Amino acid sequence: MQPLPLQPTVDPSRSSGALAAALEAWAAAIGPENVVSDGPDLAQSEMATFATHQRVPAILRPQDVNAVEKCLAIANHYRVALHPRSSGRNWGYGSRVPVRDAVVIDLGRMNRIVEFDEELGHVSVEPGVTQRQLHEFLRARGSVLWMDATGSSPECSVVGNTVERGFGHTPYGDHFANVCALEVVLPDGRRLATGMARFENARAAPVYRWGVGPSLDGLFSQSNLGIVTRMTLWLMPRPTYFQAFSFSIDQDADLEALVDALRPLRLDRTIPSAVHIGNDVKILSSLMSQSPQRPAPPSLLSAEALDDFRREFGFGVWNGYGGLYGTRAQVAAARGAIRAALRGVADRVRFFDDRDMAWAARLARPYRWLTGRHLSQPLEFFKPVYELMQGTPTDRMIPSVYWRKLTLPATDRLNPDRDRCGLIWLPVVSPLGGAHARVMIDIVRQVFACHAFDPAVSMTLLGERSISNVIGISYDRDMAGEDARAMRCYEDLLQCLTRAGYYPYRLGIQSMGELRSTVGCHDELVAGIKRLVDPNGILSPGRYQPV
Amino acid sequence: MQPLPLQPTVDPSRSSGALAAALEAWAAAIGPENVVSDGPDLAQSEMATFATHQRVPAILRPQDVNAVEKCLAIANHYRVALHPRSSGRNWGYGSRVPVRDAVVIDLGRMNRIVEFDEELGHVSVEPGVTQRQLHEFLRARGSVLWMDATGSSPECSVVGNTVERGFGHTPYGDHFANVCALEVVLPDGRRLATGMARFENARAAPVYRWGVGPSLDGLFSQSNLGIVTRMTLWLMPRPTYFQAFSFSIDQDADLEALVDALRPLRLDRTIPSAVHIGNDVKILSSLMSQSPQRPAPPSLLSAEALDDFRREFGFGVWNGYGGLYGTRAQVAAARGAIRAALRGVADRVRFFDDRDMAWAARLARPYRWLTGRHLSQPLEFFKPVYELMQGTPTDRMIPSVYWRKLTLPATDRLNPDRDRCGLIWLPVVSPLGGAHARVMIDIVRQVFACHAFDPAVSMTLLGERSISNVIGISYDRDMAGEDARAMRCYEDLLQCLTRAGYYPYRLGIQSMGELRSTVGCHDELVAGIKRLVDPNGILSPGRYQPV
Repeated sequence: MQPLPLQPTVDPSRSSGALAAALEAWAAAIGPENVVSDGPDLAQSEMATFATHQRVPAILRPQDVNAVEKCLAIANHYRVALHPRSSGRNWGYGSRVPVRDAVVIDLGRMNRIVEFDEELGHVSVEPGVTQRQLHEFLRARGSVLWMDATGSSPECSVVGNTVERGFGHTPYGDHFANVCALEVVLPDGRRLATGMARFENARAAPVYRWGVGPSLDGLFSQSNLGIVTRMTLWLMPRPTYFQAFSFSIDQDADLEALVDALRPLRLDRTIPSAVHIGNDVKILSSLMSQSPQRPAPPSLLSAEALDDFRREFGFGVWNGYGGLYGTRAQVAAARGAIRAALRGVADRVRFFDDRDMAWAARLARPYRWLTGRHLSQPLEFFKPVYELMQGTPTDRMIPSVYWRKLTLPATDRLNPDRDRCGLIWLPVVSPLGGAHARVMIDIVRQVFACHAFDPAVSMTLLGERSISNVIGISYDRDMAGEDARAMRCYEDLLQCLTRAGYYPYRLGIQSMGELRSTVGCHDELVAGIKRLVDPNGILSPGRYQPV
Repeated sequence: MQPLPLQPTVDPSRSSGALAAALEAWAAAIGPENVVSDGPDLAQSEMATFATHQRVPAILRPQDVNAVEKCLAIANHYRVALHPRSSGRNWGYGSRVPVRDAVVIDLGRMNRIVEFDEELGHVSVEPGVTQRQLHEFLRARGSVLWMDATGSSPECSVVGNTVERGFGHTPYGDHFANVCALEVVLPDGRRLATGMARFENARAAPVYRWGVGPSLDGLFSQSNLGIVTRMTLWLMPRPTYFQAFSFSIDQDADLEALVDALRPLRLDRTIPSAVHIGNDVKILSSLMSQSPQRPAPPSLLSAEALDDFRREFGFGVWNGYGGLYGTRAQVAAARGAIRAALRGVADRVRFFDDRDMAWAARLARPYRWLTGRHLSQPLEFFKPVYELMQGTPTDRMIPSVYWRKLTLPATDRLNPDRDRCGLIWLPVVSPLGGAHARVMIDIVRQVFACHAFDPAVSMTLLGERSISNVIGISYDRDMAGEDARAMRCYEDLLQCLTRAGYYPYRLGIQSMGELRSTVGCHDELVAGIKRLVDPNGILSPGRYQPV
């Protein structure tokens, strides 16, 4: 094996002769109407929620896996880099922008729902299938199955989110843990089926993950080793009864005790789904992108403004929620255990079901009239969360990306990339323990204070032993200097957190090369496999490549 | 990539000059006392529970990962094939015998329990750690954690069983799904750490599976791509209350309805652990290796003998059991749902906890005196199963391997390889549905009837959507012609089941090369990765290599 890192092989600038020839070949192969080499889509493909420099000279729109294979063959022939995108809504991580200059292969037209099994709860989808589409597919059939939705946008690609190892809100929240039978086109153009799907007639292909022999699925998540053109995902049966719960703490000092109280409940699966805990800034950003408490950017929120916000809307310094799924008896048993565990640890521990939600909606206005306090806005915050826990995608989370902007477009016209919202996510994983939560959050606060940003933090108890902490830097890209200032904050935070042992579990396009292994030959092995499947280095050069 | 399959590179016959030189080098590197090149251990390493032809010219016993690296470097230098084993108890699949002639690298001395976390429930072990050792380690510390044990032998290697994707009996029954942070030595001698363990100080290494970037763990299960020298495994917290349940059906025709009734209970996780269902032959083989009902080999059990057995001991044609874990309220809620689902579908649906087990043991003798029926033997069958569901390894399953032998040694002297027990497992995976169970079992019965063997079948509802069916061919290797007759039955069964779409999820050494992919380039990719990490082809040539 050569020790050299893989280099980008092409100069895909619009003037390149190889590119021009490739464009002609692509047009011949998949139709000129499916090759976009000018117009606003190109510019849009170079935009993210932070400053980027990558160029996208063209976009290809294959309609099926055969067309994908053709696109790759031509890219190899002319040595032009290709970067696949599904819906391109990877906001906070680089949106639809490639890591290095590349022609984008847009998989959005491949949006077929190929197979569906109501009884065993699985569905096979292409990368263009969006959350909304899958949800409507299930609803139209009167299915008793629930999908798991990520809280980003209903227009997110299910496959895209899954291969990036995104998460959601139900017991199937760890998306990549609930898929199998991937169909992949390798960069060199060969097609691959994983698990039992490599045998034509294998009955268990959509229901059994491991197959026989080495399991290859993991290679195709967070990687540039292949284009996933289909996957089977598992769907949960709708429980006979669903109840959500929420809780909060008013003192930051109680965070350790809260996390430690939740740990046994996740560990013994009393809480069967991810618990999401957000700090006050996170809640405020979600709830009040247009609130008066929000200071004009780039000013920081004052402690008083946060206090006012918490008091007025009844939120805590930390606020969590989760879902319980089962028969009424099963949910009641879990509820009892949660109540006992959180007694004296958390405030405002509440449980509510569909009936409670309906009542609350009806009562919001009279409640405000009687008490002078808002019920409708917390409810407005909570309703989409409640629905996410039932597998319903929502567009109600997107406005939070705008919270440091001066104006918010209408809901159906939101486009954070175009509207120059500033957002950089840094997601790190920590063990599920109060002491770790404390160390982690103290580092976050110090770094954010240094850089004068408000830290929006969510801690998701996704696994049973770990917390997926998503830290967001939000700003207004229209303000001079903010792009650079935010990225300095990100870099500083990444360094401080990794130095303390808290590593990212997902990377934005700006930091793909920064994490080098310090133990063993992981990076060299991945580079070796890359060379094996992509000898010309044409697929998403640099993506999750630590060299 | 070359299309040629990887060939075994060496002739490890004892006379080979390269081997002699390698043996000298190994002796110098890890001490002559750790290089065994004659004596009974070699012969034992060439024995399985069916006929084998492979030769083992020497055994190496490295004491740590550095010694493993040295052994591999020397094997590469002299081009001598090496095959790792942990405890070598891979009975029914080839025991400790390599797929092709190879020097065995015995990892049994590497038996350290390296890290342990009571709070988060994880432990890191080397491949020599046995089930018994881990269980005693936990007990000695008064840990509240339960391991998951496979029902083979307490002396089984935890790592060995896990990388072969073995299973157990608790909610952590899918062993490979509950590990992370593998330490692997690649065949070319480089060391690798997977997941977050590739960063020296990553706090989440033992608690978060995916790491960042492509996930490599799957490559090192059921493969010859590396030697796993350490892994972190997750342990479940002991529930406040445990209750087992059992059920059976008296008519084979009710199998479909039974499986269909269980499906929703697994799918919605009301039953949180694997449900194991065994046919009458399976139960009889477990219970009565010395029973009078057992015909002298190689005769078949008559329908009458099976009827007598079922009547006398109160078993059904199909018999299942599973475990419920939680608070008393949680278990009661699950119990209610199970009772309702199995009403009218299964007979003898029973629930019992520690107190019931203690009572039953005390009542067994008076019960027999009063009713003339055995209680002690069903209890004897059930007690180890009950304990397995609590994560306690047992040696009470091993005698079942002897059930077609004329004599059974004392429990502490059981050695199925040496004692020439005949056993060939064929494990296939099917979707969790009654119709599939019917098709599968009909094929099994037809093939076994053709070949005049009694089919011992267990169906394990390991996943939530699939059944892991383990079909056993048992015979007496001391009877002339039986080895060949049994292997013909196996081959026929493999062919009939795969033709019907039911594929093996684990292979014995006799059939590693038989399953070629019919969709995509899976086999070529695996072969390519093999060449990448093992250019000389020295590690376990042929193991899970479909070419």
